[in-house]
Amino acid sequence: MRVSKLFTRTKKEINKEETALNARLLLRAGYINKEMAGVYSFLPLGLRVLNKIANIVREEMNITLGAQEVLMSALHPLKNYQLTKRDKIDVLFHTKLNGGGDLVMGQSHEEIVVPLFNQFLSSYKDLPCGIYQIQSKFRNELRAKSGILRGREFLMKDLYSFHTSKECFEEYYKKAKEVYLDIYQKLGIGEKTYLTFASGGTFSKYSHEFQMLSEIGEDEIYICDDCNVAVNKEIIDDVNGCPECKKTKKELRIEKAIEVGNIFPLGTRFSDAFNLKVKDKDGKDIAPIMGCYGIGISRVMGSIVEASNDEKGIIWPEEVSPFDVHLVGLNLDKKEVKQFAEDLYSKLEKENKSVLYDDREDVSGGFKLKDADLMGISKQIIVSEKLLEKNMVEYKTRKSGETEINTLESIIDKIK
Amino acid sequence: MRVSKLFTRTKKEINKEETALNARLLLRAGYINKEMAGVYSFLPLGLRVLNKIANIVREEMNITLGAQEVLMSALHPLKNYQLTKRDKIDVLFHTKLNGGGDLVMGQSHEEIVVPLFNQFLSSYKDLPCGIYQIQSKFRNELRAKSGILRGREFLMKDLYSFHTSKECFEEYYKKAKEVYLDIYQKLGIGEKTYLTFASGGTFSKYSHEFQMLSEIGEDEIYICDDCNVAVNKEIIDDVNGCPECKKTKKELRIEKAIEVGNIFPLGTRFSDAFNLKVKDKDGKDIAPIMGCYGIGISRVMGSIVEASNDEKGIIWPEEVSPFDVHLVGLNLDKKEVKQFAEDLYSKLEKENKSVLYDDREDVSGGFKLKDADLMGISKQIIVSEKLLEKNMVEYKTRKSGETEINTLESIIDKIK
Repeated sequence: MRVSKLFTRTKKEINKEETALNARLLLRAGYINKEMAGVYSFLPLGLRVLNKIANIVREEMNITLGAQEVLMSALHPLKNYQLTKRDKIDVLFHTKLNGGGDLVMGQSHEEIVVPLFNQFLSSYKDLPCGIYQIQSKFRNELRAKSGILRGREFLMKDLYSFHTSKECFEEYYKKAKEVYLDIYQKLGIGEKTYLTFASGGTFSKYSHEFQMLSEIGEDEIYICDDCNVAVNKEIIDDVNGCPECKKTKKELRIEKAIEVGNIFPLGTRFSDAFNLKVKDKDGKDIAPIMGCYGIGISRVMGSIVEASNDEKGIIWPEEVSPFDVHLVGLNLDKKEVKQFAEDLYSKLEKENKSVLYDDREDVSGGFKLKDADLMGISKQIIVSEKLLEKNMVEYKTRKSGETEINTLESIIDKIK
Repeated sequence: MRVSKLFTRTKKEINKEETALNARLLLRAGYINKEMAGVYSFLPLGLRVLNKIANIVREEMNITLGAQEVLMSALHPLKNYQLTKRDKIDVLFHTKLNGGGDLVMGQSHEEIVVPLFNQFLSSYKDLPCGIYQIQSKFRNELRAKSGILRGREFLMKDLYSFHTSKECFEEYYKKAKEVYLDIYQKLGIGEKTYLTFASGGTFSKYSHEFQMLSEIGEDEIYICDDCNVAVNKEIIDDVNGCPECKKTKKELRIEKAIEVGNIFPLGTRFSDAFNLKVKDKDGKDIAPIMGCYGIGISRVMGSIVEASNDEKGIIWPEEVSPFDVHLVGLNLDKKEVKQFAEDLYSKLEKENKSVLYDDREDVSGGFKLKDADLMGISKQIIVSEKLLEKNMVEYKTRKSGETEINTLESIIDKIK
């Protein structure tokens, strides 16, 4: 994509009301637009990052967990929430049908997925089964000051699993934990993200969060470096240490963190509410045991920005960088330089590299280099008159800041 | 994908309240689930069709029109609609922020896209520019009885274009018309779809609809077979004939049709409402001229079903078929047959064909063949004990119903 065609621009200044670093950087670099507190639109560069994250998650859901993707509605009948006794929770957005009927906007989908399953499930042979979607959720947060970390409208992957036995559920839940840890590795935040024990509710001693270390995190976690797990502060006094190796609270390291995913045992709470039953091997009706597994796709995007930036701007991990390469053309008023840059752009695209090509001629070189650092694409190639005279180009890794001046051939080898 | 793993099942009977044929067939075949009138969830097979349609549309937007994809919010501030005087239109779903603030759900995005552009546009050099999204829309229809043809929540592609001059706008608008006709060809409904003159409003004599012939259509159109265009009944008396060749109303053929897309000249109505200005070549402020261009992705899916079915079920055009091949395994209780079917399934997937493989062993052959016809995947391969004895498989084209019994090699050649 050519920067000259991109309708977004980087911004020097943005509204001071926006205090969250993730949103400030994403707004300045032209990835998102703020519609109101907690509500953002995703612009071309932002949507590319969102899709990259979504596709990494999707692949793990489809292939590793064998889950089936659906797209459930965002409009929900309020009566379903009366059945689960969640009709009074304060994060619901309420609305009404013309002609009568109370609705809420989906903040999660247990109230839709369970009646949906009830249409199809009949026998224990149909289980275990996992279905998921990647879809916008709506939560009427009283305060929304964390940029895209806590949106009133946000993109989420939500998976629901159904099982005939506790053993089957536990096996799936264990596998889901591993899959989640793999996902954070693939998203480039694996090193900072901890499986974290959290409050379990009625059906299980624990639920599990995935907490990414960050100074601006709303959560505090106690980390056990021996077991590579953590405990949410909310339950540390009940547990009094690491649930795996029995180290005491005092021996654990406390850190601030952002919750980048969570998985819950749901027991039969929702199956019971909708009278979901399957026949077991002996023909007896049983209520399936459920689990739910969430990752906020847009929240992960914001978390990555919080975890990976410097004074110059965003630093995308390669895995989610909106483009493979940012090609910065300097001195494009010189015909040979322009031709060289254009040829290189075509060449990279032919090799199936996605390229953001700064082909602007009405902007100074310094401005372009600053823009490239702000936008944070993981690899930069810089073309200029001086370099071209020596038959060289410059290659820069955004993360390390290291630069290398070398022949085009050897730089292209690096990118492959 | 294996049918034994698919959580959906075909249904013999569905609720009689659902009267629209598109929804009845899609519900019976397990493509969608009805959450309430006009609100449907898309199940694994349905989501595959939706994504195929969306990707055909997306490619034309990106490549042919050079438009930029974004994802705007579904929550809109009501105050933006007060500025455009659309705050009283009755299709709006209203809701409120906890802590105060009136919102509506997006039924279209002029009220979001214009202020968004205002953040970035400054000069005539930035135009023309087109941006689009593929996103859920919410319309509070009083009646919603047409299945997924007229949803209260539905998936839509909406493109907005911005121009400095009427000439530039008209050139883009003309190109958009051609792109739309290409899209319907690629969706397999080109032969039945007519560019249709419709009411234009304040800024232009006409807007244009794309109407697909269908007995259940809500619109009536007058077709000029010479020019291959149509006129919506609503304006036929004003126009009194074909606007292109001047044939009179009487000489045109009247048909019922479903609107599968529409494009509107918007003039400066929305630019003016939000005070969107750019500098022209002489440094003078001008309000960009806009166009908007919609295709209901889920509505197109329903329209295709209305256009393409028989007494046995759905007939997907190849272009949007959820899988390339439906592999029906009969007599799978026989070890050799099972092995042969499994090998064929792997072989087809290795050749990058998407395959729905009916590997069920607890269902009769007759039932599987009926299911395959109901689901409507465009090509079927049938494997059975009898056929295998002769080293043959059966190939069936769902549309023509033609079958061919031949060697595996020659059938695979057909599918390539």
